[in-house]
This record gives sequence, structure tokens and C-alpha cells, in this order.
Amino acid sequence: MTQYFKDIEKIKFEGTDSDNPLAFHHYNAEEVILGKTMAEHLRFGACYWHNFCWDGADVFGQGTFNRPWLQAGDAMTRAKEKADVAFEFFSKLGVPYYSFHDIDVAPEGNSIKEYVNNFAEMTDVLEQKQEETGMKLLWGTANAFSNARYAAGASTNPNPEVFAYAATQVCNAMNATKRLGGSNYVLWGGREGYETLLNTDLRQEREQMGRFMQMVVEHKHKIGFKGTLLIEPKPQEPTKHQYDYDTATVYGFLKQFGLEDEIKVNIEVNHATLAGHSFQHEIATAISLGLFGSIDANRGDAQNGWDTDQFPIDVPELTMVMCDILKAGGFKTGGFLFDTKLRRQSSDPSDLFIGHIGGMDHLALALKKGAQMLEKNFLSEAVANRYKGWSGDLGKGITSGDFTLESLANHTVTNNLSPRHQSGKQELLENQVNRVLFG
Amino acid sequence: MTQYFKDIEKIKFEGTDSDNPLAFHHYNAEEVILGKTMAEHLRFGACYWHNFCWDGADVFGQGTFNRPWLQAGDAMTRAKEKADVAFEFFSKLGVPYYSFHDIDVAPEGNSIKEYVNNFAEMTDVLEQKQEETGMKLLWGTANAFSNARYAAGASTNPNPEVFAYAATQVCNAMNATKRLGGSNYVLWGGREGYETLLNTDLRQEREQMGRFMQMVVEHKHKIGFKGTLLIEPKPQEPTKHQYDYDTATVYGFLKQFGLEDEIKVNIEVNHATLAGHSFQHEIATAISLGLFGSIDANRGDAQNGWDTDQFPIDVPELTMVMCDILKAGGFKTGGFLFDTKLRRQSSDPSDLFIGHIGGMDHLALALKKGAQMLEKNFLSEAVANRYKGWSGDLGKGITSGDFTLESLANHTVTNNLSPRHQSGKQELLENQVNRVLFG
Amino acid sequence: MTQYFKDIEKIKFEGTDSDNPLAFHHYNAEEVILGKTMAEHLRFGACYWHNFCWDGADVFGQGTFNRPWLQAGDAMTRAKEKADVAFEFFSKLGVPYYSFHDIDVAPEGNSIKEYVNNFAEMTDVLEQKQEETGMKLLWGTANAFSNARYAAGASTNPNPEVFAYAATQVCNAMNATKRLGGSNYVLWGGREGYETLLNTDLRQEREQMGRFMQMVVEHKHKIGFKGTLLIEPKPQEPTKHQYDYDTATVYGFLKQFGLEDEIKVNIEVNHATLAGHSFQHEIATAISLGLFGSIDANRGDAQNGWDTDQFPIDVPELTMVMCDILKAGGFKTGGFLFDTKLRRQSSDPSDLFIGHIGGMDHLALALKKGAQMLEKNFLSEAVANRYKGWSGDLGKGITSGDFTLESLANHTVTNNLSPRHQSGKQELLENQVNRVLFG
Amino acid sequence: MTQYFKDIEKIKFEGTDSDNPLAFHHYNAEEVILGKTMAEHLRFGACYWHNFCWDGADVFGQGTFNRPWLQAGDAMTRAKEKADVAFEFFSKLGVPYYSFHDIDVAPEGNSIKEYVNNFAEMTDVLEQKQEETGMKLLWGTANAFSNARYAAGASTNPNPEVFAYAATQVCNAMNATKRLGGSNYVLWGGREGYETLLNTDLRQEREQMGRFMQMVVEHKHKIGFKGTLLIEPKPQEPTKHQYDYDTATVYGFLKQFGLEDEIKVNIEVNHATLAGHSFQHEIATAISLGLFGSIDANRGDAQNGWDTDQFPIDVPELTMVMCDILKAGGFKTGGFLFDTKLRRQSSDPSDLFIGHIGGMDHLALALKKGAQMLEKNFLSEAVANRYKGWSGDLGKGITSGDFTLESLANHTVTNNLSPRHQSGKQELLENQVNRVLFG
Repeated sequence: MTQYFKDIEKIKFEGTDSDNPLAFHHYNAEEVILGKTMAEHLRFGACYWHNFCWDGADVFGQGTFNRPWLQAGDAMTRAKEKADVAFEFFSKLGVPYYSFHDIDVAPEGNSIKEYVNNFAEMTDVLEQKQEETGMKLLWGTANAFSNARYAAGASTNPNPEVFAYAATQVCNAMNATKRLGGSNYVLWGGREGYETLLNTDLRQEREQMGRFMQMVVEHKHKIGFKGTLLIEPKPQEPTKHQYDYDTATVYGFLKQFGLEDEIKVNIEVNHATLAGHSFQHEIATAISLGLFGSIDANRGDAQNGWDTDQFPIDVPELTMVMCDILKAGGFKTGGFLFDTKLRRQSSDPSDLFIGHIGGMDHLALALKKGAQMLEKNFLSEAVANRYKGWSGDLGKGITSGDFTLESLANHTVTNNLSPRHQSGKQELLENQVNRVLFG
Repeated sequence: MTQYFKDIEKIKFEGTDSDNPLAFHHYNAEEVILGKTMAEHLRFGACYWHNFCWDGADVFGQGTFNRPWLQAGDAMTRAKEKADVAFEFFSKLGVPYYSFHDIDVAPEGNSIKEYVNNFAEMTDVLEQKQEETGMKLLWGTANAFSNARYAAGASTNPNPEVFAYAATQVCNAMNATKRLGGSNYVLWGGREGYETLLNTDLRQEREQMGRFMQMVVEHKHKIGFKGTLLIEPKPQEPTKHQYDYDTATVYGFLKQFGLEDEIKVNIEVNHATLAGHSFQHEIATAISLGLFGSIDANRGDAQNGWDTDQFPIDVPELTMVMCDILKAGGFKTGGFLFDTKLRRQSSDPSDLFIGHIGGMDHLALALKKGAQMLEKNFLSEAVANRYKGWSGDLGKGITSGDFTLESLANHTVTNNLSPRHQSGKQELLENQVNRVLFG
Repeated sequence: MTQYFKDIEKIKFEGTDSDNPLAFHHYNAEEVILGKTMAEHLRFGACYWHNFCWDGADVFGQGTFNRPWLQAGDAMTRAKEKADVAFEFFSKLGVPYYSFHDIDVAPEGNSIKEYVNNFAEMTDVLEQKQEETGMKLLWGTANAFSNARYAAGASTNPNPEVFAYAATQVCNAMNATKRLGGSNYVLWGGREGYETLLNTDLRQEREQMGRFMQMVVEHKHKIGFKGTLLIEPKPQEPTKHQYDYDTATVYGFLKQFGLEDEIKVNIEVNHATLAGHSFQHEIATAISLGLFGSIDANRGDAQNGWDTDQFPIDVPELTMVMCDILKAGGFKTGGFLFDTKLRRQSSDPSDLFIGHIGGMDHLALALKKGAQMLEKNFLSEAVANRYKGWSGDLGKGITSGDFTLESLANHTVTNNLSPRHQSGKQELLENQVNRVLFG
Repeated sequence: MTQYFKDIEKIKFEGTDSDNPLAFHHYNAEEVILGKTMAEHLRFGACYWHNFCWDGADVFGQGTFNRPWLQAGDAMTRAKEKADVAFEFFSKLGVPYYSFHDIDVAPEGNSIKEYVNNFAEMTDVLEQKQEETGMKLLWGTANAFSNARYAAGASTNPNPEVFAYAATQVCNAMNATKRLGGSNYVLWGGREGYETLLNTDLRQEREQMGRFMQMVVEHKHKIGFKGTLLIEPKPQEPTKHQYDYDTATVYGFLKQFGLEDEIKVNIEVNHATLAGHSFQHEIATAISLGLFGSIDANRGDAQNGWDTDQFPIDVPELTMVMCDILKAGGFKTGGFLFDTKLRRQSSDPSDLFIGHIGGMDHLALALKKGAQMLEKNFLSEAVANRYKGWSGDLGKGITSGDFTLESLANHTVTNNLSPRHQSGKQELLENQVNRVLFG
């Protein structure tokens, strides 16, 4: 046990009557909902990155957290201290999964060889930690955006040597993810975009990114990695424009390069809202396109135009998302990953636990409410009723290709069709949803 | 000649020394730039819709324009008066092209049969007007969003009879467009989207829209229409979310239904900015995806979150777009269409001319500046230089598929690659661009 | 009883077990919370405008509602039919209050004299309706933005005759409001702003608006109106920029013209969010500046940049607002007014009831939850504890003016002060709030 | 001369024919426009902060610039190296002014005493540098937002000791500014706002900030500082909401604390746009309220929701601003300060010069165009003509207070006033402006 979290016990479920801020009030891992345990449904993960690699600095100010393992010192020693504290945190929190970027867990070193060696050594450490704690890896990824060499992108860099460097990191991170039994491998193209069109060849960069993704898919099959490959859409930030703008954009990219059956999406709440969409929109779109993979559950602030990565608190929206996921059969290899940042002012060690407990409780609550919503079934009924015409002769005729534009026009004129608008009943459905949510 | 524009003469080019607000200062139709006349490059069109069917009303107030042809009266008589005034306007303005929605030119009537008859009669009128004036049709389209029956969409309506009604309008509008020698046929799905996910089946609606577009493509070939089919992306408004969100989204849709070689995009400046993109971004994206078709040159207001459809005045941005279009070989069947609205306060008959003259002059200026930009060639040189590594051995090896992820990683480690970031020179290029723009 | 709502009975409270969409599940008018009935706390009102003067048209389409009283016909006859249906609606819904614009209730006529006469006649009708039904007037107002004469503003119009016309409407509307026992008089400057700075004299327009408001205040005192004068802030739409941008902006305006003790604000949820603020921010700001008056409870859509005026459904946000209002002592003359629009697709007569029932239930729920939040008191305790230093010697010394900048600097250096940041506990408070909200 | 800029000569004016990217093409310091030199009109300044204290890091990545003076080493030695390179840059660039935060120029040290000593020593260095180079100080300021102690604000901190610490910094920075002959002293409240309303007492924090500003004003008079005090509005970032949201908000704050004649605003382009305003709006508002002070000329990106602080390139918008400033009599103590950041990819030493040269050239061009605009006078004429009614009997009667609301209503009815809307001529004015801009 480390010194840092010495005052914190393993977090327990205490139910809604408890006032203990360091206990779960809704998340009861073994509680069964619609035939599966909460743990199986939610597949919670916590991240290395924001929790253990960030000291609370922002663009306008220095760190506020004083994490001991981020102080100066021998890099590998610090990396091991970080692993100690991270796995202690994961375990005490009681999430079954974690996630990492390669350089979250291992020092980059001063050369690609040092990188490879450091990462290999730390992969051993992680493997041992997993064994000791029972933690599992939700996904691994490579950070190909923080180092100065990636300022103009990784796979979309104007310099092919940078592409090669990124390929090396991704190759190593995929291999490590496989070895650690990871369920997914994530690709977030933090600098795969442009700052200005003046110096950018869009078609060239797209081709580079397409080839990169094909190489990733080929490597997956070559090494026999059984997890899912995931692209994480984001519209902008740090770049002015990122190529993986949103789910619909990623879909077009995958179709162009023949990858739509190989790669799914990892949707982040905050990225959805930065793209001008609701969280539910991105989830529903991904499901309807067959691309739904996993979720980064960190939300934004409705009034701020940058990634705030806050813990999820909007139970109504989470509930609707949970409904959609349950209807779609739940997560396959994905899960709810907290790629969340504490607010920079939340500088107590316990705040790390409190933030995650809240996120887990709110999602557990959303699961319970979402299951109730499905059981009541009024939404599915309303939708089925609204579209019932498409099960009739005319509807089936159209969708089965019986009509040309002209024959359908003739049908319309001959029968003097004069369809009238029917109420969409939006307010009714909103009220019914709130009655499930709030009783 | 109508009474309405009786005080306005045909607009002439008078050059930059003239102070006449009812003359062109830059648009000189026959002036040759890079081997083509301005008229050939710009292919200007004015629209029926906002100019002749809108009376200046907005959501908070009644009309301000007092257009005589929009007063109460016999619908077909008014439609013919409208055609008189519209073609007088188009001719005096000196745009070679115009555009219309079916119900801009002909009354909807009280049944689909009346619609068909009215529209047929008005198509005769338009044909005669074209002959008399030499005007050509840039594109036709059907309005399948204003009538109450389309409140829940046209092709994506829950009621297949509404789909059929829309199909009838589109069939008739395509036929009319062909007969009138139209260069393009446009599909803007004003209500093809959703108001709330609660009552919406995204997958069902996408299938409906896909089938609709296939029927449109089939009909085009059946009737031998030689123009281009165009989808006009817009992210929202009037719907909460529109399926043709932006160019990248339309690309994915076209790929799904195998239509990417059949349909291109009609990009509207204001729709680009509502989607969170710059105008140039949408144009550059469309060109890079092979989807570039035509342009609605109406801009938005940078501080307002709805369609304002103003005349284009941002010469710097227009110039960059013109550069991209010139580099891509110019318009094929498309053009610059002013789907513009006067400001509601601009209630003088002459304001209609002044707005369009400004738009045409600003685009003519952008053409001249864009041509200078190309001749100076510094942007192409900067881009070529920036990506030159991709013509080298490593770059070619990657793009040609010589490397797997693993062999590339091995190459990187073996050669101890350590690429360094090179300056992107954004400020330099911005300064150089402004020197072309402003001398 | 009118034909239109003949199938709808008076709405009753049936509690949370009822599945009746035309009943209240939380709003129990006589239920006592913190010493007052729900009806006294919430002071609900419904509006004439969107409910009875709007037919479902938007900028892209015609009306969808088919309201009989909006069909062509004799204007005064229709106005009386509208009053019949409006008061039947208000009464069956069970809101104690209503609101109107002058020209919502009476036809404008073709001259100012006709306006005065029509409005006087309809004021008699309203008075009689109030007597018959027991309805009370929450606020009256004048519409000085819809008529074409107001295209360039009312009090800020470049033409002083337009100022005079607006003054006449406001004078008549204030008098009518007084006669009808109105609790407040509202001023929303729908066109008091600018479309372009090019033709606008900001200082002149501000002076005009300042003089107008002074005249309004003087008239209030002259006629002995005991209600509150309210300015309704909005940042833009229909104008590019509206002068009453938000509460903080209105405060500066009131201070300039010495009106800060005479006029308060009527905050609309949707206007808050269009201004880049949260609803709670605007309420908390108004309370902290002593300007809190009344609320228009219509919300916007988080992804759309225009006024959607939807019914409130966000119980968490409403609860926080309710907390702030309860802490501030509740409404004085204000209330929750539904200046809400049905979604254009919600075309059933019952949708009008369903929308309002939802809004009322959600606010009643927020009242119950807000009262619980106050009783638990953890937020007040957290705030008191966080600022406790300001009750100490140093804090009191600073606020009481004991220190100059220099003496405070000397104190700091002499005592070698080295304050450390304390956790703001945001996640903890968010979790605690959600536990009150969701149990 | 330092090693860093050894390859760069003093920047000269070479005119529009030169292709030298390291020369001015429009900014000719001694050229006279409307009776003053360009240098006198524009009063250019460059900043210490982004140029010399920032290494190119952003939230997602490490520094890219490799500035030697930012490497590890003895803090005071590095501070002096930084001063060497900064003053070499300022001098070679040819801006007459510079600006600094206290801790840009001097190390914070480990205690308030070290801070005071370090800053005093570096003030001596700056004084000597000013003498050697002829550079002048446009404004000084204190950074009370970067240190972890300011995480919850400076003057608005819940802890009065933090207020005291900030007061000490501001006291020292004001004294240094006076000694160095600074023209202005700036207050930017980077953390004076809130992250969540849950833990915030808005009224208390406003009172604290009010008292702080009063202390600052009193200190100014006590030490006889003749420059101007400036508040720099910003709506958010790093905080969720900043109290100095925009100019109109600052005006209300100043009025509340009786400071409207003592403090003016320093408007930053990027802060204007983040607040939902155009740059020109903020300038015009400040002028109309008598608050115009100085300008930070760094712009944002129209598609990105955070501070990008780019060099100004939008000549049309800059020209309109310059018109307004010229009409208002020009800067008094303010100037155009480049508080600009290079794009993170712009890593060449010369990029620092190129960015500033562009900004200076674009503003010089805007000055020339703005002067032409004034000489042509069409905007002033259009405005004067539009409001001419306010010089007539009715207009004067209203503004002079001759009318009550009632007497004006009577006047309107008696005279049967029926004013009609006149065209606002927006498109005409936009075209005329572009003809000045582009010939």
C-alpha cells in the first residue's frame, strides 16, 4: 500500500441510505439487472492518463495536485511508483478495467530504442500488477500527439519518418495490449488534422491515414489480437480541425478504405458535444451504422468550448444512452471508461475517488432507470406505431424496390394521395421519460 | 417591363472608378482570366425563392417588402406576374442562370393533381421566358419541407404516403429541370432529420432516404438527364439535426448506398459555418473526396446561430475558395448561386439589385485575386516542399504498401530514426496571402 | 365551452401512480412546501402568444396546427373566439395566471386609433373573462417588434415617430395591465439592437432607450401601478445583437439611467443559454444584483443556436434554480410563465395541455427537490465553510477598508504569508446534489 | 546581441514591392496619416509573456520551441538572458512599446520576500534595458492566476490571505510600472470567476473584487501614477465563467463601485469573440460607454472555442475598428499590443518576427484604409441621414424630456401618426466599404 491513498479503504456499496461520500450508493457490482450483473453491463474502467500523469496544470497555470510520483527523479523509478499508486487506486475503487497510453506507463526515453526497452520493462510490471490485483485492461493505446515531433500529426505528418515513428509506437502498444489481454485497442488522432488549410494537402493526409489504419488492421490479424480496434472521434482541439470529426465522418473514412467491418468507434461524451451533437446522438448514430464500440464517459461543460473531461453527472442523458445500449445488446468488448479529469481545484487525494464514485453511481443509476424504461416499453411502442405504415403495402413496396420514382408518382396521382401530418408527441414522450426518471 | 423595377436599367460594368451603386465595379462578364471569361468561371445564378417568394417576414415579425406579386389574388395570375418580375430582374442583373423550387414558380393547389397541372403550365411559362431572355437554369429542385405534410420529413417521413408525395414532386421537378435544360438538380432535405431521438428510428429513416436517392439516380438515367445531381448539406434548422450534416457526412451516406459516383454536393457557405466548419473547409473537403458540385454563395453571421443567408462580402475567404476551385479545374455543371436573403430592413426595390451586385463584384474580385495567387504559386510550392518526404524512398515505400506495421517499426528502430518537427510557417503564408489580397 | 378542447376535462392532480398523461403527477396546487402552497411558490402562468397566436409556422414552413380562431374572418370576432378558447385552456389547465401582448388579444387595426379602440374593447373582454374564471394577469406587455414599422427597432428606431408609436402601445398596455390587476409589466426589446454597426449610432440608440425606460417608470408611478416593471434580456434574434444582452448588461444600463431600483429582470431560460450562460447563472446573477423579478420557463435546445422555447424538462437544473429562489425568499410579484412553444410537429389539441402539464410537473418536482436540498443544507454549509476566512480578522479588515493596497502588501510580506490552495470539492458537491435528486 | 536572433537584422520598411518576409510592406513608422505618424496612431507593443515565457506547450503536448532561456538553470540568470533576448527582439522588430507580467520578468521565488527582491532586481534590469534601447512600457501587470495558490481566484478567493498575496503582487507591479514610465496598468482576472455555482457566493466575490479595484485606484492616486488603469474583459477560460465577461458587464461593475471614471477596458479580439461578440462590437461599445482604453490585437479562430491568440489578419474587420478609433480621437494612453501566440508548429526563431510583422502590416493597412473611409465620409453621412428625425421637433421634444409617456401617446393618436419603415441599406454600405478596402 502506498502512502498516498493510505487513508482510503476499498470502496464499498452502502446503498442510498448511506451518507458516506466514499461509498457507492447505486453501483452494486453483483446486482443483477435484466439478467446480467451491473459489473457485466457497465464494464467500468479508470485511466492512467488524467489520473496519474496530470498534475493539474492548464494553459494558464501550473499544477495544483502535488502528486509525489510526478516529482523529479529517475524516470523508471517514478514509473514504477506510478504503477503502484495506479493499481492501488484501481483496486480500491473497484473498477474491473483500466486503460493506458504507452508513455503514460513508461518513460519515452531519448531514442526509439530506449522507448522500446522502457515500455517492455513496464509491460512486465503491468502484467504482474494485473495478476496481483485481478485488474484487466479495457484498452491500450499509443500517445502519438504529445511529443514535439508530432506537432504536425502522426500518420498525417508531412514527414514520413514521423509516420514511421508513430507506427513503431502503435506496433509496440498493440503488442503490449495483446499480451496484457486487452479487450480493445484505441486510436485517437490528437494531431491528425490541420491548423491551416494554407499548408495542408487534405487528400494526401487522408491517404496516409487510410494506409496507416490498414496497416493497423493487418497487424491485428497477424498477431491474432482478438480485441476490437476503435477510432475515437473528436472534432478539434488541439488541432483546428481533426479528421475523425464525429461518428458519421469516421464512417465515411472507414468505407473509403474498406475498414467498416474492422474498426468501431470509441465515443467520448465531450467530443460529441464539441462536434455540435448530443451524446445520445453519437451513440445512436454509431449503433445505427454498426460502429458502436466503447465509451469515454467524460463530459464537457455546456458553456465552454474546450475539452473539460468532467465526470458524468447528467443522469437523464446517461439513462437515454443506456436505453439505446441495452436495446442494441450491450457492450461487446467495450465499456465505460473514465477518461476524466478532476477539476483543477479538486486537489485532495480523496477527490480522485469521489469523482469516480460519482461517475459510477450515476451510470449505475442510469442503468437501473434505463432498464425500467425498456420494461415499460412505451418508447419502442411509440416508435413502432409511428412507422407502422412502412409495414403496409405501400411502405413495403417502396423499400423492396417495387417502385421507380415515376411509378410511385403515378401511384400518388392516380390515388390522389393526400397524407396529413400526425403529431410527433414529443412533449408526451418527454414527460413519460421524466416520470421513469423521477417517479 | 414591370412597374416594380421600372426605375432600374440593366446593370453595366463601369469599373473601379465609378461610384454608381447600380453598376459592377469588378464583374466584367467578358473579361478573360486564366483563359476563360469571368462569366464562364463564375456561372452566376440568382434564385426565385428568397427574391420573389419571401416578403421579409421572420419568426418575430411580418413582411416588410410589400412585393405586389405576393398580395392576395388568383394564384396562377400571381405566379405569372412573379415570373415576369423575376425574369426582368434576372435579365437586368445580368446573371446567366437562375434556380427554382417547384412551388416557387407554381401554386401547390389543393391536390396533387392541381399541383401537377399548375407546375406543368408554369413550366411552359418558364420555357418561354428562357427563350425570350436567354436565361438558363442552373438547377431546379422540389420543395418537400414547407407544406405541413412534411413536418416530419419527406423521404424520411414515418408515413410512406408522404414519401410518395415527395417522390411525385421530385419526379415532376426533375422532368421540368430536364425540359428546361437545367445544369443540375438539387436535393436539400430541409426536414430530413429529427426533432427528438425519442420518437425516431435512425436506421429506418436512413434506409428510406437511401432508397429515395437511388430512385432519383435511376430516374435521372431513365429520362436521360445529363446534369448533375446534388445534395445540399446542412447540419440543422429547421430540424434539430439534419442527416446531410456536412460534406463528410454526405460522403459516408453516398458510400453506403453506392451513390458516390452519382451525386455531388451543393455547398452553402452558411450551412458550412452552422456545421462548425469554415466555408473553405467544406469546399476543400468536397474537392478532396471528389464530390465538389456547386455553391450557394450565401453566408451567415459569425455571431448568430441560424441561417441568415446574407450576400457574400468576405473577399479574403472567397479568394481562398476560388483558388481551390481554380486548382481543381473550375466548375463543371455548377456555379455560384445566390440563394441569398436581403436583410429584412432592406426594403427598397433597388436593394435586391445592390445585394446581388455586391455579391457578384466580391466574387469577381476573388476570382482575380485567386488567379494572382495561383500565378504567384507560393502556396503550391510551400505545400509541395512540406510533403516532399513522401516522394522519397521511405514515403513511397509506405504508401505503396511495402511495409507492414511491424517491418516499419523494425526499420525505425534499426535506423534509430529521430525525426524533428519543422515549422509549419503558418504566419508566413498568412502574410503572403494578405499581400496578394491587399497589395 | 369551445369545440376545440371539448374532449379535455379540467386537469387534476393524480399523483405519481397515475399513468394519465392529462393529469398532474407532482403539481398539487394546495400541497404545502416550506410553509407555502405549491401554487403560491410557483405562481404558474400560461401565455396567449405562442399558444393562441401561433399556427406552427417556422421560417421554412407553413403552419401545422389548424387553429380555428386563426383562420380568416372578422378580426374582432376572431379575437373574441381566441379569448374564449384561451381562458378555457387556462382554466382547464389550472394555472392561476396568464400573460399577453397587446396585439395578441386585440387586432392592430389600420391606424393607431383603431388599435386603441380594439384594445380597449378587448380589455373589457379580458376583464370579464378574469371575473368569470378567477384567472389573474401575471404580466402584460406591448408587441413593438412584429409590425413592419418596427423593423429598425421601437424606442431605438432612427425615426422618432416610431418611438412615439411604441410609446402609445406601451402606455395603453400599461394602463390595461393596471386595470386588469397585473402583477408585472414586461418590456422585451425584440428589435432594440442592431443588424449592422455600419448604419448604427450606438450611443444615440442607448440614450433613446434610456429615455424610454424613464418615461415608463414615470408613467408607472403616475398611474399608481403597483406591479413590477421587468426588462427581459436576450442576446440576439431577431436582431444580430440586442442591447438587453443578459442580466449583467441590463444592470449596467439601469445603473446608467438611475433605474436599478425601479426595474427588475424577467429571465428566460432560452435567452440565458443563447447568451452563453447557464439558466442558473442568470438567476444567481440577478439575485446577487438585486434584480430578480420573474421567469419565462421556456428552454432551448443545447445543439441549436436559436430560440426553440421548449417546455422545461431538465429537473436537475430547475432544482438548482429553485434552491436559489427559495434561498432568496421566493418570487415577489413574479412567477413561472410558460412562454413556451409546442414543437411544430405537436399538432394535437391535447399536446397544448401535455406540454404545460409536463412543465408544471417538472417545476413542482424541482420545488420539492429544492426544498429537500435546503433542508439538508450541505450546500450552504460548504459555502459558509469555504469563505469562513472572510469572517476572520484579515478578511474583515480588508472588506471594512482598514487596509490600503500598500499596507496590505506590507502585512503580507511582514507576516511572510504563504496561502495554499484548498480543494473546491466540486465533484463531492455534484454527487451530493444528485443524491438528493435521485435518491 | 544574443545568439538566438543573430541572423536577423532590424526590420525595415521596404514597401509593397518587396518580397522580403522580414520587412514591413505597409508599416512605415514615420509616414503621416491624418496628421499623425503611423507610430503615433498605432502605438505598437510586443509582449514578454507568449513570446518569451511560453515554449509551445499546449494541454495535449510538450513545448516545440526550444527557447534556450527557458531551459533549466539559475532562475535569475535565466531571467536576465530572457531580458536580453526580449529587448533585442523588441528593438529589431521596431515596436516602440512592450508589456510584462511581474513573473514574466522575474522568478517568483519560494516566498513573498524572494518575489519582492527578485522583481526589484529585474525592474532595475528593465529600466537599464529601456534606457539602452529607447523601448517604452505600454503596460505592466501582475500574474495572479498561474500559481497554484490562485486556483480559486485572486481577489475573489475564498481565502483572504490569497487576496493579500495578490494585493502584494499588484502593489509591486504598479510601483514598477510607475517607475518604468508605463502608460497603463492592466488587470486581467484570469481566475476571477467560478468553476461551479455549487461552491460559490457570487455576491461575496463581487464585493471582494470591488474592494480590490478600489484599493488599486486609491494606490494609483497615492503614488501619482499618471497612466490609465485597464480591466481586460474575458468571458471564460480558464474559469467556466469570468466576472469581467465583456465590456458591458465591466461597465455595470464599475458603476456599482463608483469606478467608471477611473478604469477603462483593454479589449482583446479573441476575448470579444469568445463572448459571442464581434471585435468591432466590443470597441464600439467601449467607445459609446466612455471606457475605451487599449487593445490586445490577438484574434481567435472562428471555429475553435478557446483562446488561440493568433496574429491579426482580418484587414476588413481591423479597418472598421480603426475607423471607430480614429473617429473617437485615437488612443490616449493605449495602443495595439500583440499579446499573440505563434502557432505551436511555428518553431523557427524567424517566425516570431514574421508573425509580428504581419500583425503590424495588417494594422498599418487598416489605418490607411480606415483613414480613406473617414475621408470618403459615406458612413457618417448615412448614419446622420438615418437619424435625422431626432434633430427635428418631435425627436428633440422626446430626448429633452418634454413628453411623458401619456402625452406622447396622445400626440401620436391625435396626429394619427403612421410611420413606415425605411430601408436600412445594409448591403449598399457593405458594398461601399468593400470598395474602399479593395478598390
